[in-house]
Amino acid sequence: MSEQSNFFSKLEERVKSINSHLCVGLDPHLKELFPECDDYSKLSEEERCDAAFTFCKTIIDATVPHAAAYKPNAAFFEALGVNLGVSTLYRVIKSIPPEIPVLLDVKRGDIGSTASAYAEACYDHLGAHGVTLSPLMGWDSVKPFVTGKYSNKGAFLLCKTSNPGSNDILALDLDQPRQAVFEKIAQLTNAWSSQCSGEECSSSPPHLGLVVGSTDPIALSRARKAAGPKVWILAPGVGAQGGDLDAACRAGLNDDGTCMLIPVSRGISRADDKNAKAAELKDGINAAREAVMSSNTAGEGEENAIEDIAPYQKEFLDFSLSEGVLKFGSFVLKSGRTSPYFFNAGLFASGGALFKLGRAYAASIMADKTL
Amino acid sequence: MSEQSNFFSKLEERVKSINSHLCVGLDPHLKELFPECDDYSKLSEEERCDAAFTFCKTIIDATVPHAAAYKPNAAFFEALGVNLGVSTLYRVIKSIPPEIPVLLDVKRGDIGSTASAYAEACYDHLGAHGVTLSPLMGWDSVKPFVTGKYSNKGAFLLCKTSNPGSNDILALDLDQPRQAVFEKIAQLTNAWSSQCSGEECSSSPPHLGLVVGSTDPIALSRARKAAGPKVWILAPGVGAQGGDLDAACRAGLNDDGTCMLIPVSRGISRADDKNAKAAELKDGINAAREAVMSSNTAGEGEENAIEDIAPYQKEFLDFSLSEGVLKFGSFVLKSGRTSPYFFNAGLFASGGALFKLGRAYAASIMADKTL
Repeated sequence: MSEQSNFFSKLEERVKSINSHLCVGLDPHLKELFPECDDYSKLSEEERCDAAFTFCKTIIDATVPHAAAYKPNAAFFEALGVNLGVSTLYRVIKSIPPEIPVLLDVKRGDIGSTASAYAEACYDHLGAHGVTLSPLMGWDSVKPFVTGKYSNKGAFLLCKTSNPGSNDILALDLDQPRQAVFEKIAQLTNAWSSQCSGEECSSSPPHLGLVVGSTDPIALSRARKAAGPKVWILAPGVGAQGGDLDAACRAGLNDDGTCMLIPVSRGISRADDKNAKAAELKDGINAAREAVMSSNTAGEGEENAIEDIAPYQKEFLDFSLSEGVLKFGSFVLKSGRTSPYFFNAGLFASGGALFKLGRAYAASIMADKTL
Repeated sequence: MSEQSNFFSKLEERVKSINSHLCVGLDPHLKELFPECDDYSKLSEEERCDAAFTFCKTIIDATVPHAAAYKPNAAFFEALGVNLGVSTLYRVIKSIPPEIPVLLDVKRGDIGSTASAYAEACYDHLGAHGVTLSPLMGWDSVKPFVTGKYSNKGAFLLCKTSNPGSNDILALDLDQPRQAVFEKIAQLTNAWSSQCSGEECSSSPPHLGLVVGSTDPIALSRARKAAGPKVWILAPGVGAQGGDLDAACRAGLNDDGTCMLIPVSRGISRADDKNAKAAELKDGINAAREAVMSSNTAGEGEENAIEDIAPYQKEFLDFSLSEGVLKFGSFVLKSGRTSPYFFNAGLFASGGALFKLGRAYAASIMADKTL
């Protein structure tokens, strides 16, 4: 990968050249490296690090033809030990073919000279091309990673993650009508990217992407809308966490059927034939993309289905998701049919939940134009 | 420090035993280590790391009698290089006397097994007693750091930081009246701490503290109110960033005049006599604490000054702060007098700002009971 061009333009090149939206995660978790071991401190740091390197190198060698990008997760390397953990991460990144973008999953977030120090560590020392960041502290915590000497780099900002705790802060409603914290982050990402223009980095494609979990397609759709069509979205959660690929693609792809990366880690590392598994995932993503593109062309009404719902409907769907009443994934129904969602109304089981359910009924009746 | 007791109870012990609320930051920034150098890559990693260790060890040796805690910042060690950077951090932490709590400033934030891996790295490998975290991803990103095998540890969560960018997300208003994102974080911190009780860790003192910049005393006061009196607040920004110590103490201390740590890094590292500087800072903090305590006893009306203001007054103050009209710090006025704040009404210079100013006048007139 040339050091002269923007991370996201290089990512786009790679995605196009191998027709893949698959991002291969490199998570050398000790549990996976030593499944039989009950006390990792019995192993020497060399043993742990050698196993981690071999684990990652095996995945890389098997998946090169299908990987739009590699995403090593810094946590698992830091957990290997203080002497060799980070240098093992460096060895892994160095072993990745130079034409494939390396997105270092570090989720750092700090300001000023501290952010610059993290950027130095990630880019100059470790050789990453892009990073994941927490935008919690604002633009001055993001800026050092994508401007000045690092204007050829790029960052994915945490927006709406795929874990239950993402409702604690990211899903909070702001005093702006119909805007949650994560939508504001998606909006800001666009605004911040355009500020890069004045900092000697071109704004097309943007320098910033978003991390939005695939487990909540409604949030994914709202984040895409708030961020606009050019922002890349990294959408974890497909597979292991129950995210539904078709629903995620429908919600997160832009009108050109792109600007979305699907990261998979365990789905590949645990497969016996990692090459075949990566190919299968790549093809699966492409099939989902094509289905979305052809249904978009077939009927524009359906395309806007999520955007055209009324506020009370949106509120009810959000509420159902937060209560666990509505789930997306793969569910075998009593009929034997497999459904991409499940609606368990029995979980409306508290006074507060019944109150909101009642309000949704009332709003639905009031909105019915036949009455 | 005994490994059996909670981080915050140990911190309280240390604070009481040496009567100090000073947290000494260890930030071996390359610029400070090699002020004459224009290209750090010319230096060997050994040279950089040896200088960083000596820098930190000199500060530690000079400040032990005055340090309630040490706060090494991981970023500056990671920026030293991939081979020796993290092990230098380990050497620094190991050189701190065991009775002094070590708060590792890492600001990590990730979920599940990734969060556990970071916790292993910080606690098991590096030997930290507590960490700073980003709460953006919610409770499941915080939990692995303070429950289970780490229930004797503690974490300070980013709440309202002292940088301008903290207004981008943390200061956003929620749809709850008079509640911003950072106040919700302060509230959640309390709720999460009490969840620890069920996880084999006692809830008194809480397992979670907050990072709230001292540069915005109104936010500090609101965070204290939302978090309650038992939560420790780490309040950076005094000195270098212009935070006013008296105003910060008035806003952030609890009724017992404690539960607040004032971190200082450059203020100490750049002093010729670091021991004397740390003693001066410790004494200055104690003087400010005593002034607050005695004014609380003297006049209860004044104590509640910030809390008793009307919503329109609070809105106007927040607005004045966000526009830079109202600043806290140390300002030499034309009269020669030094003021702890400065109000520059000339900066109400846009149509939107004048609109809000007019609304504040109108509200003030309407609220005047003499009319």
